[in-house]
This record gives sequence, structure tokens and C-alpha cells, in this order.
Amino acid sequence: MTIASPNLNPVIALLGRRLRLAVIGGGPGSFIGAMHRQAARLDDGYELVAAALSSDPEKSVQAGVSLGLPAERAYASGLALLQAEAQRTDGADVIAIMTPNDSHFELSVTALKLGFDVICDKPMTNTLAEARELHAVQQQSGRVFCLTHNYTGYPMVRQARAMVEAGELGELRLMQVEYVQGGRADESIPPGQNKKRWKEDGRGGPSLVMGDIGTHAHNLLRFVSGLEVAEVAAEIGPIVPGRVVHDYAGAMLRMEGGARGSFWVTQTAAGVENCLRLRISGNRGTLEWMQEVPQELLFKPLGAPQQKRTPNGPGTLPFAARSCRIVAGHPEGFHEGFANLYKDAGEAIAARRAGAAPDPLALHFPNALDGLRGVEFVDAVMRSSEANGAWMKPGA
Amino acid sequence: MTIASPNLNPVIALLGRRLRLAVIGGGPGSFIGAMHRQAARLDDGYELVAAALSSDPEKSVQAGVSLGLPAERAYASGLALLQAEAQRTDGADVIAIMTPNDSHFELSVTALKLGFDVICDKPMTNTLAEARELHAVQQQSGRVFCLTHNYTGYPMVRQARAMVEAGELGELRLMQVEYVQGGRADESIPPGQNKKRWKEDGRGGPSLVMGDIGTHAHNLLRFVSGLEVAEVAAEIGPIVPGRVVHDYAGAMLRMEGGARGSFWVTQTAAGVENCLRLRISGNRGTLEWMQEVPQELLFKPLGAPQQKRTPNGPGTLPFAARSCRIVAGHPEGFHEGFANLYKDAGEAIAARRAGAAPDPLALHFPNALDGLRGVEFVDAVMRSSEANGAWMKPGA
Amino acid sequence: MTIASPNLNPVIALLGRRLRLAVIGGGPGSFIGAMHRQAARLDDGYELVAAALSSDPEKSVQAGVSLGLPAERAYASGLALLQAEAQRTDGADVIAIMTPNDSHFELSVTALKLGFDVICDKPMTNTLAEARELHAVQQQSGRVFCLTHNYTGYPMVRQARAMVEAGELGELRLMQVEYVQGGRADESIPPGQNKKRWKEDGRGGPSLVMGDIGTHAHNLLRFVSGLEVAEVAAEIGPIVPGRVVHDYAGAMLRMEGGARGSFWVTQTAAGVENCLRLRISGNRGTLEWMQEVPQELLFKPLGAPQQKRTPNGPGTLPFAARSCRIVAGHPEGFHEGFANLYKDAGEAIAARRAGAAPDPLALHFPNALDGLRGVEFVDAVMRSSEANGAWMKPGA
Amino acid sequence: MTIASPNLNPVIALLGRRLRLAVIGGGPGSFIGAMHRQAARLDDGYELVAAALSSDPEKSVQAGVSLGLPAERAYASGLALLQAEAQRTDGADVIAIMTPNDSHFELSVTALKLGFDVICDKPMTNTLAEARELHAVQQQSGRVFCLTHNYTGYPMVRQARAMVEAGELGELRLMQVEYVQGGRADESIPPGQNKKRWKEDGRGGPSLVMGDIGTHAHNLLRFVSGLEVAEVAAEIGPIVPGRVVHDYAGAMLRMEGGARGSFWVTQTAAGVENCLRLRISGNRGTLEWMQEVPQELLFKPLGAPQQKRTPNGPGTLPFAARSCRIVAGHPEGFHEGFANLYKDAGEAIAARRAGAAPDPLALHFPNALDGLRGVEFVDAVMRSSEANGAWMKPGA
Repeated sequence: MTIASPNLNPVIALLGRRLRLAVIGGGPGSFIGAMHRQAARLDDGYELVAAALSSDPEKSVQAGVSLGLPAERAYASGLALLQAEAQRTDGADVIAIMTPNDSHFELSVTALKLGFDVICDKPMTNTLAEARELHAVQQQSGRVFCLTHNYTGYPMVRQARAMVEAGELGELRLMQVEYVQGGRADESIPPGQNKKRWKEDGRGGPSLVMGDIGTHAHNLLRFVSGLEVAEVAAEIGPIVPGRVVHDYAGAMLRMEGGARGSFWVTQTAAGVENCLRLRISGNRGTLEWMQEVPQELLFKPLGAPQQKRTPNGPGTLPFAARSCRIVAGHPEGFHEGFANLYKDAGEAIAARRAGAAPDPLALHFPNALDGLRGVEFVDAVMRSSEANGAWMKPGA
Repeated sequence: MTIASPNLNPVIALLGRRLRLAVIGGGPGSFIGAMHRQAARLDDGYELVAAALSSDPEKSVQAGVSLGLPAERAYASGLALLQAEAQRTDGADVIAIMTPNDSHFELSVTALKLGFDVICDKPMTNTLAEARELHAVQQQSGRVFCLTHNYTGYPMVRQARAMVEAGELGELRLMQVEYVQGGRADESIPPGQNKKRWKEDGRGGPSLVMGDIGTHAHNLLRFVSGLEVAEVAAEIGPIVPGRVVHDYAGAMLRMEGGARGSFWVTQTAAGVENCLRLRISGNRGTLEWMQEVPQELLFKPLGAPQQKRTPNGPGTLPFAARSCRIVAGHPEGFHEGFANLYKDAGEAIAARRAGAAPDPLALHFPNALDGLRGVEFVDAVMRSSEANGAWMKPGA
Repeated sequence: MTIASPNLNPVIALLGRRLRLAVIGGGPGSFIGAMHRQAARLDDGYELVAAALSSDPEKSVQAGVSLGLPAERAYASGLALLQAEAQRTDGADVIAIMTPNDSHFELSVTALKLGFDVICDKPMTNTLAEARELHAVQQQSGRVFCLTHNYTGYPMVRQARAMVEAGELGELRLMQVEYVQGGRADESIPPGQNKKRWKEDGRGGPSLVMGDIGTHAHNLLRFVSGLEVAEVAAEIGPIVPGRVVHDYAGAMLRMEGGARGSFWVTQTAAGVENCLRLRISGNRGTLEWMQEVPQELLFKPLGAPQQKRTPNGPGTLPFAARSCRIVAGHPEGFHEGFANLYKDAGEAIAARRAGAAPDPLALHFPNALDGLRGVEFVDAVMRSSEANGAWMKPGA
Repeated sequence: MTIASPNLNPVIALLGRRLRLAVIGGGPGSFIGAMHRQAARLDDGYELVAAALSSDPEKSVQAGVSLGLPAERAYASGLALLQAEAQRTDGADVIAIMTPNDSHFELSVTALKLGFDVICDKPMTNTLAEARELHAVQQQSGRVFCLTHNYTGYPMVRQARAMVEAGELGELRLMQVEYVQGGRADESIPPGQNKKRWKEDGRGGPSLVMGDIGTHAHNLLRFVSGLEVAEVAAEIGPIVPGRVVHDYAGAMLRMEGGARGSFWVTQTAAGVENCLRLRISGNRGTLEWMQEVPQELLFKPLGAPQQKRTPNGPGTLPFAARSCRIVAGHPEGFHEGFANLYKDAGEAIAARRAGAAPDPLALHFPNALDGLRGVEFVDAVMRSSEANGAWMKPGA
């Protein structure tokens, strides 16, 4: 087992320095903000140079300073940050956006047009029109756009994709993806009174459960299978009496090429933590993966004993191996998976800036097209549900 | 933990003798035949007195003798057995039927009309009309009819039902049931050339995957949740190119009372053994059970640590406790679950014959109404799939 | 995967009838008594013809009748049973002994001398002198003696042994065996007040934990590895303050041939159910098995992905395959493992009586030599502990 | 569940800047070097300012520069680094040492005497005399010394310790600790030809298996139980024929207060990855933890269903909660556990330098006394093994 040298920092190797990162959103109390910054630091390819951490201007500045930033780069708003950093000769290279969903579009488009590379939280946008425009802007810009469908950064998810690509499953026939959480199961909390206000006031998008976790499930399925959803028949809504925002979605899937699938997501399964699970069968075998124990990938080949694959364990393929930082048996977790997106995007950005060719395996981070596909899928699920489960084509 | 005394054989206690059992089907090479007979023997409530083991008259007689039966009770056919045993003063009390699906109806109806109690393999019948008639005949007969949805015999499945009944999950909101196998995944076997011919020549019913395993999944969901499927939207068919019989079915479920569900069954998941899995969430917690490790029931209560429940472990409720034969930590398996149906049905039959009241907890074995509900569900799934996934009401 | 035909009952094939079984011990309230009788029934090779179920003569007779035996074969004591059955032309063939440990010796020796085959609970005897004499008597008798180290009947334990024999682990280097239970963890029960009196009044032998479970652990290690313990260094005693009977034992092992091992048993691990666990490493791979999930055997080969082996799953070797009754994915449990000893012993007994050669794979049930080795090991553990952990040779 | 605000960086809060870190060892090809630097970065409490990465002076300088350090702080040796950094006004605050074991002593003592705080890899030293002296120097110095027994940084290990301290297990009775790896199982590699030369040329210390992993196992047991080993009886050596360095150790433990334990470590279990496992029973329940799935802690209370505890899941105690960076269900891994030591030590160092009191929960990182206890234990194991397993007191 060869482990990619942990000393070789491709960003420094390509640029002679770290990428300058500015973050928008993710202020005090946000776990995703800390996660982004930790992910950026882990592999030492980024240096945090600016932030706009809160939608409250005063808090925003204060929080930036408390992170150790100089006051002039602790901005009062995301748009202010973009304008100011674009003027500086030592300005940020990359903008990371982790604001409420409804602002992803404006911030991303602005950043791309100002020449920044962008790392943005999912869902890419709340509306299909925005998703199409953002995708178009990104394509025109030539800039890197990384969407943080972070579960694709887990080594064993990448191993699954690589095994599918290598034909180890044969022709894909059947797939199940589900994302089951219990975060909205406590019915003693009145509707609209959850800690994160924006999730229930419309900023979370037309279908909260789809924006929050349904897009993750959809992206994971596409990422591993390499297949698009051709048609979907769905039901979606609030299952808890009195609730307004969607908290579950069930769907049947027809994949391109004829495979069939099952899709199930909810945030209302009381007591369940964070059970994103994928199973995928071809005519040569089945893969099973679950986020709560991400260091294990079950492979059940036709006619041979079932296997448990582990990061850097025997049979690790190159795409997974480059996503591990450590020898087998030392579990990497959520942070490392998240950081793998930062690492890959950083390598792509540095290569672009250096005019060099990145490692092709660095280019599998979710991008604007994946974001568009996700929003198209949310749209199709909603159209189907409104049509009482009629089959709908995403993107149609 | 009190364990029901394993010495107390309720059949002998009620009747002063074992029940006389005749079996139809399950001859040489059949594992389900051996299973039935082992299940009947395990708790010593039955004595095998007659058999018609094969559709080939000569083989049938020979096989009966090889089981140790006297030649005159090793019958050439099931109908011959029924007629002859009905004449004997020491004739069989109970008929167990494990023939191909298309013969369940005729044999069961004949047996009930002749006054026998019946234990019959699932699916109850291949057609809805037959199911309705069989159910009506059984109701008129006053005889016990036990349908071997054997997975309901597992102690932890019974614990799950008892916990739902006791309100430990609160109001049910969401449920997922799936039955994933790999038995038809080997595509090198030409269609129609599987070992069991009857499964692919039409005798297996209009939808093989639904008859074989879909009815199990449906029954398990009803058994644990106590809820009927109000409406189903489904897609079903052969996923393997060139195959004729159905090998997968996916569906969305609307349960009575408003809960929502997901249903997924296939026999074409290469490398998967026998993964019948149920998850069910109420507003107070979630239960998870999987047949491959049937001795474990996960309970994830809202706001408290998740638990693993085990047979006769702490918190075992009476319905589960009576279904265990041994102290905690000593796993019982498929045979014992199957035998629990024989045990319960035997107690019901003996009580009927003795004019006594059986333990109410003995009366939860699947019966003719459950069989009818299963065939109604198969029918609704097929109607929905033919209508491109339109929602259909079972039994309508 | 070929499954041994479940219709072929080797006892009936060899003798033209079932073996006549008499049981001594295991009366009302005993789970092990019910277990023996269920195990005897499961594969239809035995017919229960006589019993002496209790040390209380009146209860003994009553309990036998309640099992459906004729009054004259419901005996008041084990010795009475042996004498009377030996006189009958239709007397028992086989005596199954499940009395308190201190009576195994007398009953077994008497039974063997009277010409019966014997199935006896472990430990074989309480003292080394008795074990040696019983072994000698058995050798002279030519009768079958089966010691119910039932864990060796699990298909995956047999698979492990077969894999070791086939060299799949290479040369054995290291092994760990442990048997951890919580049955004596509740310290609110005063010493000597446990439900089973005989376990604490001396009848349980010189070291309760070793007789109860230590001999199982030792036997399992020998059964799978094929190696004897050459030397042992141990500490043993009561760990709970005020307790007299031993409730834990720890030991280091030197195996013949040089492998090293660790041994750990206790009945005082609060909350643990029945965790008998074996791990064994050779220079080509490692096997791991745990009784609480007996349907899984982990195989970790050197340099290849780890595997989960299952009964009748891919790679099942003949010794395991003959110990399965059902297709892969349908877990068999404690009862079936126990019944495998009855099945194998029955085949050996029937073959002896028929003057035929049994299937060599039927002859791996634990026997009087295994029983002697177990008592020798208990003796060595105690000698070592008394000598403050000095290394001792079993049998010396 | 309150999550400690991930924005509050205690180092910056206390000092107004990050700690300046210099690393010695861990150059190209070393995974532990990258791990230290990633751990230092994760929580943003350190800034890498200097390095001496290799024992080869030229490589050392080159590697430092490739990490982005200025040439004058990429030192040719560890001692050079210490001398030079001690002179600088902007010199390092903290020295992290990850060199071969035989150099820990000199580097640590020198660093402490020069006034640096120290983070050092385990084992603390190779000899007992060195351990005692280093401990004394550290005590005199008043400097922070953190020994990277990183497994104590996992949230669920800290939860276990906190549960023991809170009395949830009652009085401790029995404990098992094992560390089983397969890294030295491949016998086709000739002795002395492993990749890491220093591990087999004596620099790895008198007992390689004990230095590499035995000290981890011993420390984990002490950390969770809060108990010292009073006496040990052991056997240790090379199990692979022809090998010189130790590759396994087995031992029996007598803990202070009377509990008993089992200890088993090896690097020669073919196919096993990194199975550090702890089980610990008191009279109220049992805890079980395994490093390969570090996000799960099993708790088996006496008389109640067994529980699976998870980081930030229900029942998380403060010491564990402060060691989590994210909500329940998002597994943190090896890196985060390692980083918890850096985080805690950083807080302690910053507090010392600021003259402030750190959070008492930050002070549970392994220190020089733990290091001394570890070396004392290695010494006692070796003395016992040389005395053929006689009981020995560590530190005597």
C-alpha cells in the first residue's frame, strides 16, 4: 500500500504559497462554519485572510477579529467582503460560502464574476432558475466551483465509486439511497421555533428536507453509480401534524440505462442520528455503505464471501488511497472527508492559477453541474408530488 | 426475567396427546419441507402421522416411507391424503401445506371443509378471488388457519410489535420495509432454468418476487405496526434483461392514519443473502430489525441513548418472552421462529378441540385474514405498476 | 452450494428406527433439560422413551408423566432408570445426562458398563481421578460418549476448524479465548442464594467458573486450533467480595508447537450476556468468532480484504455444510448447534449398532478424551493459581 | 446538548496569538509527522514556525523548506533547533518531538531545561532510568509535557473515563485490554528489513511491541479505570520463528484495589488492522470500546438494556462533550482524537504563559507521570517474563 506522501502539499508545490481563503457565513454557534475552517486548515493548503461571519454587521466584524483576523478584513457583510477583497493585491483567492441557502446564488455569482474561485455549501440554490444561471456563470468564468457535498469526500465512498468504475459490480441494476435523521423529531418544539430560524422561514428553500439532506442523498447516488436519475415518482411533505416545512420524502427512481432505485429521506426519525446509507447492486455484486460508520464499505460479490473494505486496507483503489491520510485501521472521520473536498479543490485552483494540469483524480469534487442536477432533482420531486406521484424527468 | 416453563407442553396439557400432523409437499430436496417438520417437532406438540410429499405419486409414497411413516399413510397425492385421513378415527388433526403456490387454494379449502385445521405456506393464494374465497371458507369453518409468515415468529419481531402496542414509539410516523436477496442475481442461469421449476412456470403466481418475499415484507410491516396499507404507488417487474418473472418491486406507502412508508424488495441483489429489514419511527423513538441478525432489535428513543434489545434480555415484554426458549445471550434462529408459529397454532388448535380458551398471546400467528391482506396488496402493487405508479387502494 | 438432503435421516437409514433415548436430569424449571430434548427431536433421530427428571423421586415421576411418558418409564432416579431400562428388550439405547456436575461420573460409568451409549453434560466430572476413570471405562466399553460442549456444534465454529485444518490460516501463532458472562454479577444476591443451589454448594465442582464456562472456552480453543495446551499460568478465584465460589479466571497459555494464548473467563461482568469469543491467528490470517452472533465468522487474510463467512455461504467447507439445515442467510441458533451434537452422536451410535462406518465428519463431537482434557485443564489452572501463577502442565 | 462553541479558540483568547510550534522528526514518508502537524492545525491554536524533520541534516533542511518554512528555521537537527529557537525573541513556545524512541529523552530534557513546553511521542523513553529523570526534570521545570497517547483523545474513551468517575459502573472488578495489530505478520519480510529500520535496530527500545503498542494499551486502561497496575505476571517475546524483536506480550494484571485484568498485545495477528480494545466491568455495568470503530461506546448496565453511546449523543458527559467538534452522528476520527491532545495541551500551555487557570477538564492529557508509569510497566513486564511469569510490581 503506497500512501501519498503527506508532506507533499500540492498547493505550495504549485503556487509557492497557500491559497488565501475568505469565508462568508459560519459565525459563532455555527458548527458548519468551524467545520469549513478546520477542513481548510487540515492539509495546510489555505490561509484564512478574511471573513464575513454573520448577517449582523456588528457581530460579523467582532467574530472575525475573535478568529484572529485583522480588523480591516473582518467584514460587515459578504458583499462588502467580495468587493473589498477584489481590490486588494493580497486579496483572497477563494471564497467559501456557508450562509443560509437563499443567499448562495447572489454570493456565488458575484464572487465568480469578480474572478474568485468558490467553495459553496449545498444546496447550490433554492430555485431552478438560479441554479441554471449560476451554472452558466461558472462555466463562463472558468473558475473552480466546489459544492460541499462532503460525503463524497469519505475514502470509502470514493472507493465505492472507483469499484463501480472498474466494473467490479458489473452492470448496475438496483440501488437504494436513504438519509434518515432525527433532528426534527422532537414534536414538543413548536413549528418555526427551531434554533436555526432560517431553516423554517423560507430561506431554507421550497423543500427543507430536500435542501438539507435530500440533495446529499441524490448526489451520493450519482457520485457512486455514475448514473443520472432519468425519472422520479415521489411523495414529499411534512409528516408531523401542524408542521409546515417538509420533513420527509419518498421516491422511486428510474435511472438512465434502466436501473431502478429507491429514495427515502427524513429528518423526523426519532432517535436516529445521521444515517445516510447507500446500497447498490450490479450483476456481479453489491456495495453497502453507511455514514455513521464511514470507515467500512461492505462488498458482497456474487458467489464469493462478503468483504469489509477499509481505508488503505487491501484492495484500496487509487481514488480512495489519495483520500486517506493514514495507514489502515486508523479511522478518519467527517472532518477528513470534508477536508478532502478542500484539498482537491485547492489542488484544482492552484493548478489553474499556475497554469498546470492537476491530478485528474483531484477533479471529482462536486461542482456547479452537480449542483444544478441536485436542484433539478428537487424540482422534479416536487412536481411529482404535486402531481400525486406521476413520473417526472429532472431538468425537464 | 421469568421464562415460560419449557416443560409445560400446552398441547399435551389440553388434549392429553400430541396433535396428529399430516404434511402435503416438502419432499426430498425441499428445505422448506424439512423446516416445517423440524418446526413441528421442536416443541413436541405434534406427531407426524401422514404425508404426501411429492407431486410425483411414486416419489411421494417412497419419500413418506423414508421418513418412517407406515406405507398406508404415505400418500400419492395431497387430495388422496385429505380424503383418507378424514375417514380415519386416528386421522390427522392438522394439515400442513407446503406445495407450489398455485395449489394452496384447493388444498386449503378442501382441508378446511373436511374439518381439518390448516397450516399453510405463503402466499395464501395466487389470485385475489381465491384469497377471498379461502378466507370466507375459513371463517365459516371455525377451523384454525395459520399462514407461515414465519418472520413474525422471531422473538425480537414480537418484541417490536409489543413495544409499538405499548406505546413505546408513540404515534407512528414513518416506516421502511425491505426484503433484499440475491437468489436470482446469477444472470448466467438462463430464464426458466432455476432449480425450482414451478417458480418460473406460472405456478409461482402473477408476480414471483411479491409472492416469494414481497408478501413477507408486507406482512412484517403490518404485524409490527398494527397498521394497514391504505394506498400504494408501485413499480414492479424484471430488472434483469430477458427475464420474464418479476425480480424487484419498489413502492411508496400511505398507511392508515397517515404514516408514510417505503417498500423495496428484490431477489436480484448479487451477493446479498436474506436481508429482510424493518425500520419504524414514531414520535417517541425508532425501532430497527434485520433478519440476518434476528437476535438484535435496536431501539433508538428520542433523547436517550440507543439500546440493543435481545431475546429474554432486560425489557423483554410478555409476547416476546413467551416466544423464547432459553436465557438471554443464547441466540435462537430461523427454526425457532418458524416453530413459534407451530407452537402458537398448536395451542390454538388444541384449545379449540378441548373447548378451552388459549392464551391470548398465542393468537397472533398470521391467519387467513392476513393472507387475504397479502394477496390484496400484491394485487394493488400490480395494478399500480400497470397504471405507471398511480396510487391504488389494496382490496379495492 | 450443495446442502445435505434434510430428508435423509441417517439413524433411520441405518437402523430402520429412531434411537431410544432416556434422559436423566433436566426437570421442571431447567432450561438445559428442555434444550436436550429439543435438540434430540430436531432431526428426528431420537424417540424419548424414559426419564428420571429430578432428584426428588416424586417430582421425578410426575415430571416424566407430564412429558407424555408412560408411568412405568418415568423413573424416580437416574440409577433406577439405568437398571430398569437395561432389562427391557425395548429399553433405551442412549442415556442423556444433565444432572448436577457431581453425579456425571457415577451415572456415566454405570450407563457405559450397562452397555448404553451416553450423552453427558460438561464438565465431564468434578475431579481428575474421576475423569481418568470415566475415560478408561468409556474406552473399554466401546460405547459412544458425547460430551455436550455444544458450542462446537455451531456451523461457523466448525467452519473455523475446517479452515484451520485446510491450512487457510497457515501456522498458528496466537490465540485468545474468552467466555464473559454476567450471570453472577448481581451482588445484591447473597452468596449461596442463587436459584440453582447446587452450583454453590460444592456440587458444581472445585471451581464453579471453570466447570460452568471455563471448560467450554478451553474446549473451543482445542476444537478449532487442533492444539493442546502445553502449559498454563493462571489466577482464579472469587472477585466479588464475600463470595466463595470462583467467578473469574485469567490465564496465559503455551500451546503445543509454540503458539501462545490468552484465556479469560468470568460470570461477573455485569450486563454481559453470553460472550464466548475466540480469535486465532496464523501466519496467513486470523479468524474471529463470537457466540452472541454465531452466524458470522470473520476471516482476515494476510494482504487481502477481510471476509465475513456465513453458514452455507460461499466458501463453506464440508464439515460446516453438513452442520447447516438451511440455505444461507437464515440464521440457525443455539438449538441447532446443540442438535448437531445429537445428530452426529446419533449417527455414530446408529452406525456402531448397525456395524456400519459413519461419515468421518460425524465423529468430531466432543468425547471422553475431550472431557478428560477439560478436567486436566481445570486442575492445572487451579494448581497454577495456588502456586501464584507458576506455569503448570495439564495432565501432569 | 450544548456544544462548546467552536469559534472560541482558548489559545487566542488567552494569549492574543497562536502558540509557536517547532517540530522535531516526522519528515517525508512519516505518517506520524503529518499527523502531528495536522493535529496542531485543526483547532487553530498553533502556528508552525520551525522544524528539524530528519536525522539527515540535508534532508532535514530541505523538508522544512518544502513545508513552507523560511530556510533559517528549517534546521539540520533537533538539538540545533532547540538552541537556536531558544535564542530568538520570536522563538518557538512548544516543541513537538516525534523522533525514534531512543532520542525522546535527550530532546525532551534539553527542551524542558531551555524553557520550552513539550509534546512528545510515546513511549516516553526506552529506559526506566531515563523515564525517572525526565519526569523529575519536567516536575522541576514547571513546563507542560504532553505525551501523545492519542487514544485517550477519542471522545468515547473520555466518555468512558467520565462514566467510571461518575460511578456509573460501580466498583470496578474486571478489565481486559488488548492491542492487536497485523503490521508485523508478514513473515516473508526478513527480520530487520522492515521499512522503519529504527524499529528493529535497538532504537525501538528493549521490547518493540511494548514500546509501540503495549504502552498505549496500558495507558488506556489506567486512563479509563483511574487505577494503577499493582502487579503483573507476563510473558513476552518474538512469536515468529527467527525474529529478534518482541512481537507479542500476554499478561495477567492485579490492579490496585483488587480488580483483576487481562492484557494482550501483538503486532503479528495477520490481517488485523488496529484493534485496540478495552472492556471494563464494575458491579453496576460494563463498558466496551474498540479503536476501529471509535465513535461507539457500548454500555451494558446491570439489569437494563445495553446501550450504544455516541459522541455528543444523549448522555454525553462534559469531558467527552468538550472533546467533540460536531453534532451527534458525524463521526470524528483518529485525527480529531490526536488533535484533542494538542488542543488540551495548548490550553494548558497558554494558561501557564498567561498566568491563568485552564479549564480543569483540559488537564487530562497524558503527562510525564503517565509516561513514567508506562515505562515502569514495560520494565515490570520484562522482569516478569524473564522470571518465567512471576508477579512483579511496576516501579519497584
